Amino acid sequence: MYKSIPPKGMRDFLPKEKALRDKIAGRIKQAYTSCGFTEIETSAIENLENLTGGDGGENTKLIFKIMKRGEKLGGLLQNKEASFSEDDLADLGLRFDFTLPLCRFYSNNRNELPNVFKAIQMGMVYRGERPQKGRYRSFVQCDVDIIGDPTPLAEIEILGAATKALNSIGITDFEVLISDRRLLIALIVASGLPEEHADDICISLDKYDKVGREGVLEELSKKNFDGTALLDSIESLTFDNIQQYSSEASQNLNTIQAALAASNIAVRFEPTLVRGMGYYTSSIFEIYSPKYGLALGGGGRYDKMVGKISGMDAPAAGFSIGFERICDLVSEEELGGEKEEKIAILIEGENEYVDAVKFAREQKATTSIFQKKKKLGKQLNNLENEGFTKFYNVSKSEYFTS
Amino acid sequence: MYKSIPPKGMRDFLPKEKALRDKIAGRIKQAYTSCGFTEIETSAIENLENLTGGDGGENTKLIFKIMKRGEKLGGLLQNKEASFSEDDLADLGLRFDFTLPLCRFYSNNRNELPNVFKAIQMGMVYRGERPQKGRYRSFVQCDVDIIGDPTPLAEIEILGAATKALNSIGITDFEVLISDRRLLIALIVASGLPEEHADDICISLDKYDKVGREGVLEELSKKNFDGTALLDSIESLTFDNIQQYSSEASQNLNTIQAALAASNIAVRFEPTLVRGMGYYTSSIFEIYSPKYGLALGGGGRYDKMVGKISGMDAPAAGFSIGFERICDLVSEEELGGEKEEKIAILIEGENEYVDAVKFAREQKATTSIFQKKKKLGKQLNNLENEGFTKFYNVSKSEYFTS
Repeated sequence: MYKSIPPKGMRDFLPKEKALRDKIAGRIKQAYTSCGFTEIETSAIENLENLTGGDGGENTKLIFKIMKRGEKLGGLLQNKEASFSEDDLADLGLRFDFTLPLCRFYSNNRNELPNVFKAIQMGMVYRGERPQKGRYRSFVQCDVDIIGDPTPLAEIEILGAATKALNSIGITDFEVLISDRRLLIALIVASGLPEEHADDICISLDKYDKVGREGVLEELSKKNFDGTALLDSIESLTFDNIQQYSSEASQNLNTIQAALAASNIAVRFEPTLVRGMGYYTSSIFEIYSPKYGLALGGGGRYDKMVGKISGMDAPAAGFSIGFERICDLVSEEELGGEKEEKIAILIEGENEYVDAVKFAREQKATTSIFQKKKKLGKQLNNLENEGFTKFYNVSKSEYFTS
Repeated sequence: MYKSIPPKGMRDFLPKEKALRDKIAGRIKQAYTSCGFTEIETSAIENLENLTGGDGGENTKLIFKIMKRGEKLGGLLQNKEASFSEDDLADLGLRFDFTLPLCRFYSNNRNELPNVFKAIQMGMVYRGERPQKGRYRSFVQCDVDIIGDPTPLAEIEILGAATKALNSIGITDFEVLISDRRLLIALIVASGLPEEHADDICISLDKYDKVGREGVLEELSKKNFDGTALLDSIESLTFDNIQQYSSEASQNLNTIQAALAASNIAVRFEPTLVRGMGYYTSSIFEIYSPKYGLALGGGGRYDKMVGKISGMDAPAAGFSIGFERICDLVSEEELGGEKEEKIAILIEGENEYVDAVKFAREQKATTSIFQKKKKLGKQLNNLENEGFTKFYNVSKSEYFTS
């Protein structure tokens, strides 16, 4: 039985939706490019062991896995005695973000890339999440990353590009939130909690904005940690007393904040910011829209990930704009742009094909040929709704109006 | 273990490759758009039963299947007694072309689309073929289709758009080959072969250009058909005696040829043209490059496919440009275009971040900030190779040359 709807959590896009999405993506790409980033493309399909082996956190549970093919699979299924698990049956998977593919790409192409590599990646990623309003199983991310620069210049350029991209589509009402993983670790240690469980504690802390202090304490308590001291110190932390916990984090945050201020980008230190991924090593950031009450994107520095794949470390930092959220906030009208000339060429029968084709070939504007219908008024009305601005009558060799 | 290369048959694209691919895709899209087509996007993931249920021919054997997730899969694997097949384990698959997704999309959105719907689809499709030189497991197709027009105007507009797209990237040396499935069926019947096996016979005929007359005869003989009379009549067929086998095909081909001639597109009748897909119902076509000895794309009319999905017929015709082949034929130089201004802003330390960011913000051109290196000559050389056209020294507030 055929199903005419797309699979659960997946979407199709009608011409008007697609045109708007392309316009928004084009603006973001243009903004990224104008900040000196160049676009690459990686395979949407990755070797499964790459996807499951990393620090992808919760996302590794959401991988769409592709079954082995041909004999590799047939052999397994025919052997009735054998017991096998899910991962024995699959060898490939769909990417769930762009960070791991970028690190793999960089490891593979290092010698052909500039030694400070400023990359754009835009495209679909896939996660088998429970679909909800505004949350899909395939969605577009728009990433900028810098590999090869250990200095805060990387963070400054990435946040500069991300904010410029949002501005370019008319989104100006946002806050750049920033923190540093090293500060979180220092706070955890200073609160008497075990450093070796920092990642696990961070996963609970990350829910602070959703479940509040009590929720976080409860979850930590289930993990047998008393989070009271930690939350006390986080809640009373200000930009000025970061230094007493981590001078590195303090200096890093100060440098980034000062440079971005010069570019009129306000950066706010947010001590409860965690970001889910295990791979972040120092700076973490998020762009938050108070107006809509949601994050428009996030990122951070991940200095150890390239090394995990290639055995050769390379400092790296990145930011990802959540394209689907942005698309919900921006309308065609807000983006502006000129209305293009589109000519509908109307014919009455096959004997007019040749003249219609000749006329079309002579026009610079967009043309499209249609059989004239009996209900001409309705047809012209529909064509206007599709964006046609002029009508041409082939038999009379003249333009006409509706 | 991490692998840094992409999966077998899949590719990554470096910045220069990606830029060229985007430029070519942009030109093709612009040409399609100027012919009145509008772009849609469908989910790259389809319900598996849609993909396996159709007339996709050999392609249905090449589907990348996505495993069921969570309990649906776990339940199957835990039941040691049960015997299950490949398709019990999977519920989704990656699209192998754009025709089936388009028909599904049209069935689902019919009421929101113009009644003559001229669609563009561009993007990756996936086939688990044995990789070879120039043949990949994920590759881009650029399709135009018209749904809702039963007249040859659809074929004329589709071939007009496809040839315009090729011209727009500097490819002018090609032939448009055309035939008609109804003619092939009439020839099969006239040769005393069974009409009900026409699809199977066509699959063998399709190999004529690769294996020649003897090869086709041999394959047909293995299927217990004597193809001698059929091949005799195909080989002696000319445009002028099509009519004696099928007056419908003759009229159709004449009309299309005449209209395209008016647009200076030469169309050649090619009786051995078959096209693999089982879903074609009348016109079939291919654009062939004699210079490179390969097909640059193909298509045809498929009037029954929308009906199979929705139960409500709609006439349809389409053409697909094989993007990967095109990319191999076109170079950056041939496409031309102006060299864009790109400014590399060089700094000597953190104390220059603020000035560098301010300067960058004031420029209209692309800017990118770099730490000045000890081997400055080499660094500037590398930056020039990356496309930077100007260098700015922040400490001296002046441009300099390499």
